[in-house]
Amino acid sequence: VTPAPRPVVELVSIGNELLLGETTDTNATWIAARLAAEGISVLRKTTVGDDVATIRDVLDAALRRCRTAICTGGLGPTPDDLTRHALAALYRRPLVVDDGWLDVLGERYARRGMPMPAINRVQAEHPEGATLLPNARGTAPGIALDDDAHGLTILLPGVPAEMRGLVEAHVLPMLRQRLRPAAPLESRIVRTAGVSEALLAERIADIAADVAPLALAFLPHGTGVDLRLTYAGTSAEAGRALLDRAIGRLCERLGDDVFALEVVDLAAVVGGMLRERGLTLALAESCTGGLVAKRMTDAAGASDYVGAGFVTYDNAAKRSMLGVSAATLETHGAVSEACAREMAEGARRAAGADVAVSITGIAGPGGGSDAKPVGTVWMAVALGAVTHARRIIFPGGRAEIRERSAQAALDMLRRALSGALHG
Amino acid sequence: VTPAPRPVVELVSIGNELLLGETTDTNATWIAARLAAEGISVLRKTTVGDDVATIRDVLDAALRRCRTAICTGGLGPTPDDLTRHALAALYRRPLVVDDGWLDVLGERYARRGMPMPAINRVQAEHPEGATLLPNARGTAPGIALDDDAHGLTILLPGVPAEMRGLVEAHVLPMLRQRLRPAAPLESRIVRTAGVSEALLAERIADIAADVAPLALAFLPHGTGVDLRLTYAGTSAEAGRALLDRAIGRLCERLGDDVFALEVVDLAAVVGGMLRERGLTLALAESCTGGLVAKRMTDAAGASDYVGAGFVTYDNAAKRSMLGVSAATLETHGAVSEACAREMAEGARRAAGADVAVSITGIAGPGGGSDAKPVGTVWMAVALGAVTHARRIIFPGGRAEIRERSAQAALDMLRRALSGALHG
Repeated sequence: VTPAPRPVVELVSIGNELLLGETTDTNATWIAARLAAEGISVLRKTTVGDDVATIRDVLDAALRRCRTAICTGGLGPTPDDLTRHALAALYRRPLVVDDGWLDVLGERYARRGMPMPAINRVQAEHPEGATLLPNARGTAPGIALDDDAHGLTILLPGVPAEMRGLVEAHVLPMLRQRLRPAAPLESRIVRTAGVSEALLAERIADIAADVAPLALAFLPHGTGVDLRLTYAGTSAEAGRALLDRAIGRLCERLGDDVFALEVVDLAAVVGGMLRERGLTLALAESCTGGLVAKRMTDAAGASDYVGAGFVTYDNAAKRSMLGVSAATLETHGAVSEACAREMAEGARRAAGADVAVSITGIAGPGGGSDAKPVGTVWMAVALGAVTHARRIIFPGGRAEIRERSAQAALDMLRRALSGALHG
Repeated sequence: VTPAPRPVVELVSIGNELLLGETTDTNATWIAARLAAEGISVLRKTTVGDDVATIRDVLDAALRRCRTAICTGGLGPTPDDLTRHALAALYRRPLVVDDGWLDVLGERYARRGMPMPAINRVQAEHPEGATLLPNARGTAPGIALDDDAHGLTILLPGVPAEMRGLVEAHVLPMLRQRLRPAAPLESRIVRTAGVSEALLAERIADIAADVAPLALAFLPHGTGVDLRLTYAGTSAEAGRALLDRAIGRLCERLGDDVFALEVVDLAAVVGGMLRERGLTLALAESCTGGLVAKRMTDAAGASDYVGAGFVTYDNAAKRSMLGVSAATLETHGAVSEACAREMAEGARRAAGADVAVSITGIAGPGGGSDAKPVGTVWMAVALGAVTHARRIIFPGGRAEIRERSAQAALDMLRRALSGALHG
């Protein structure tokens, strides 16, 4: 199997705030994922500041490598927005005003009973000969410019929702026609929780050595490790068969440590299990402060299975809202097996739910002791007649401990629902 | 005032997962912010896949531009981790094994009663002549390599907590000594909530036209707009005076729409106000599902002011946990002013707190109607004898509506605490 020639583009992200570390570039992630699903690869991503000459040069180099570039950022109405000027400089075109877009903006403001701020006028400017991509969610339209000397450049606003709308409505149709991607990228994910990267690599070493022509990558997160298998050959059918076989072998080997075969949050997997079984969930969170409830309600339709959540940050709330006994808090403390069990059982009772999860721990940075260092977390799952409890001592700072606790508690619930938890 | 020559570095992020859009590059954001605080500017960030020749070429180009490059990713123990090979290729050095690091790894595993997985051995390899940067949190050490022909390259693992530990312990001391940054970057932030970018720009147009030699940037987020003022001159003292004056003018003009003068979450600002006033907070969340509670407990010490949170996702929970009346739910529905008010007052009562915030709305994608479209959110703040209520119809998808609702509710609480809410 020889690798198929996949169409490639480059991404350029523009904005001083990205180089200053004030903003994380989630746009590039989203565009890359969207393109991968279309069978278009991203060759390189480059981030530069709001400087006309630098933007022009980086864009020029990207176009020389692959003839197609997508830029985000720098299309706002304020004087630090210079991307359209850089495009005009590279393609040697004057900036002209699009009267049609001015009318659109004027009408939008009029409908809200306001005059258009004069400052928005520059957002109707684009290099002569460019195509304007109407932005339904904001005042900056996208701009597409194509010529034989340079290739195609697409400029998009940096506001994520606006950028996404323009990609779906205009950029993907344009790229499909121009690049004619033969096959969407054949890539599969095996998501695991509860096993370290090195142990995982050892457990599947023989499979990993035998997946060619597939490529296997290990993607460790703070809360688990993903395995990614990619097929880059020419036959989509052969690729799917190879991927199916490799995925089957990995799942057989890893068993319950695998929680999903797609890029989906563990909370969504658990939500699906609850819905399938017709169970409702109650949450009792101390150190995670609502993080598990938030994750469980990220998905639409969560009201089918999330009844109620309690954030019992202090001991008084643990007593009054969940009925944790004073004796337990006095004898064992709030971070204890007994307290975790009573929190889960109390939450289930108070919410009238079928199953409940509790988390109580020390997220730090203060509050640790020799017996209970920062990172000590007790979790419990009350399901049927049994309440499972577990202690883990997590590494990392406050944010990591909270995230890892939430993930571990959701994983514990998942294993309990699938019958894999004992005792 | 002429711009001071600031030392610059380039960042290179490595990993196919970044180009496939499976992972967002938060490492580059963190490093850039950390360097900015030290007076070191990031000239450019480049992201490439796990390919030896590409990594080598991008690194070469970065070093030619600024003689110092920091790379993250590709130092794991698995065969797709190729960054150390690219470094060896560029500097033309063989890879050698560091026996000291092998011993460290062996001891760490021994302490946990496990043999070191053989696969971890490659993580003790580095190009001859390089300096190993011991990693306290993981198995991949950092690698620093410096010569006259190329300059300095620092390789760091991609796992965020490990990367951060290495930057603090090794990279910053190394860069301080080598680059001798004269003055930390003088940059200030004015964070606003509740005003659009264009309106903000109009309200401060005269100030914006008059801030030179400072640079003013507008940074719109989905939940507000930040203004950034930067001083790039040579005199730190003059810079601070100019920044103080400009910040003072902006704050005077924008009044209560400004919620912070530093990169801090609105939840932390509200937490500080609660602590200062000795008040405890209760939360009653429906459509945000715990997001506000999670944000309010992100900060250490939140137990001083967060007593309890209720996630009342269904009507039964609103009734039993918060005492919302059946009549209200029947007559007005769960997304109504009356319900929001009863939720806030009920949460305050049930938690025995001083102040409470409630949110009830339609995050979508389903559940909307003509009278109450998706995005309709009622919020209430119960403080003292008055309960304030407000309705906003938010644009965007489910995630944006949840985030914007949480931000708006926190902003409403902030304005109520500062006495700026009436009626």
